[in-house]
Amino acid sequence: MTQTSARVRMSPDDRRAQLLELGVGLLATRNLDEVTIDLLAVEAGISRGLLYHYFGNKQEFHEAIVERAVDDLIEVTAPVDLPGMGERMLVSLDRYVGFVESNHRGYVSLRRAAFGGNPRMWELYDGARRALTDRIFDSAGPDGLAELGIADTVGVRLAVRAWAAYAEDAVLAWVDDPRGIARDDLLASLAGALVAVAGTAPPVR
Amino acid sequence: MTQTSARVRMSPDDRRAQLLELGVGLLATRNLDEVTIDLLAVEAGISRGLLYHYFGNKQEFHEAIVERAVDDLIEVTAPVDLPGMGERMLVSLDRYVGFVESNHRGYVSLRRAAFGGNPRMWELYDGARRALTDRIFDSAGPDGLAELGIADTVGVRLAVRAWAAYAEDAVLAWVDDPRGIARDDLLASLAGALVAVAGTAPPVR
Repeated sequence: MTQTSARVRMSPDDRRAQLLELGVGLLATRNLDEVTIDLLAVEAGISRGLLYHYFGNKQEFHEAIVERAVDDLIEVTAPVDLPGMGERMLVSLDRYVGFVESNHRGYVSLRRAAFGGNPRMWELYDGARRALTDRIFDSAGPDGLAELGIADTVGVRLAVRAWAAYAEDAVLAWVDDPRGIARDDLLASLAGALVAVAGTAPPVR
Repeated sequence: MTQTSARVRMSPDDRRAQLLELGVGLLATRNLDEVTIDLLAVEAGISRGLLYHYFGNKQEFHEAIVERAVDDLIEVTAPVDLPGMGERMLVSLDRYVGFVESNHRGYVSLRRAAFGGNPRMWELYDGARRALTDRIFDSAGPDGLAELGIADTVGVRLAVRAWAAYAEDAVLAWVDDPRGIARDDLLASLAGALVAVAGTAPPVR
């Protein structure tokens, strides 16, 4: 009874957020095409009609779930309050790898949809990558960048954006098959690669 | 008249190869969906029926064109006979960038089709990346790798495969908008990044 009255008191926004959370959870072990309104209706124990009320149509439903998943990724990998830049980087990378591990199928299918030509999925995917890499510069600030030995130039920004593709490729390959590489060693190598490619970034003359 | 008799004497394999070359040429300024059998028929001045005879159906036609484009990429970037490993790398990278520049729309659309879930396109795309990066190890040999300061370990192979994603991302971004970065500086930075990420590759314990 308590549960029911709690549900009744929940605002439409809260209810929608709760349904999205459920949808993102389904995405962990399913690809985007498998996370349908029908499935969510069963999982949430509510009618399809009500879900359409919240999400409009299938396309908007998928976009809303992916947007929420991307927000989760950006939030979970946010820089932590640790004194050393290296440690902060390792914590964020640890959480990124954890996110890919926990949401492997959904992550791969989002990437697929983004590269596959769905403009909104691309916008969400590319926006996440942009946010994750720009944040390295914004959160570190001049002192943090100096600590890492990273300059903030157009060439370094290009290299760091490309490093995100590097990290994603390496992490997806590692999650598929760790091939004897320890998790901590992977994290350290990703952080090392970031500093290394920043060091070899092209100059802007 | 000479042209006609030459065409008559051409073997079906040669004729097919010639048509594929024409198709790959069309891909330079068009995406994969725009390179249709109808278009190739017009460009080649032959009937659609004859093209279907050579290529079976639309899917096989696209696969044959992409396979040919991928073969071109692998061939054009093949290691040249230069004494220094660094120079050989720069020549291959120069040709890779040239290929992306000349075939930009086709390259992006192949990548899109590969990531978008077309298994054969993925096989071709991933096979090309595998060939291009494995070749670095095969062609360099132990001495060449030592010259670059690159070890041949599972961790370094993972890093070099991921570097291919890095290079592709950086080159596509640069072709879209060079942002003041000179071509030679881009090439040098890509070669430098390869050595740098090999140096920070995870150990296998």
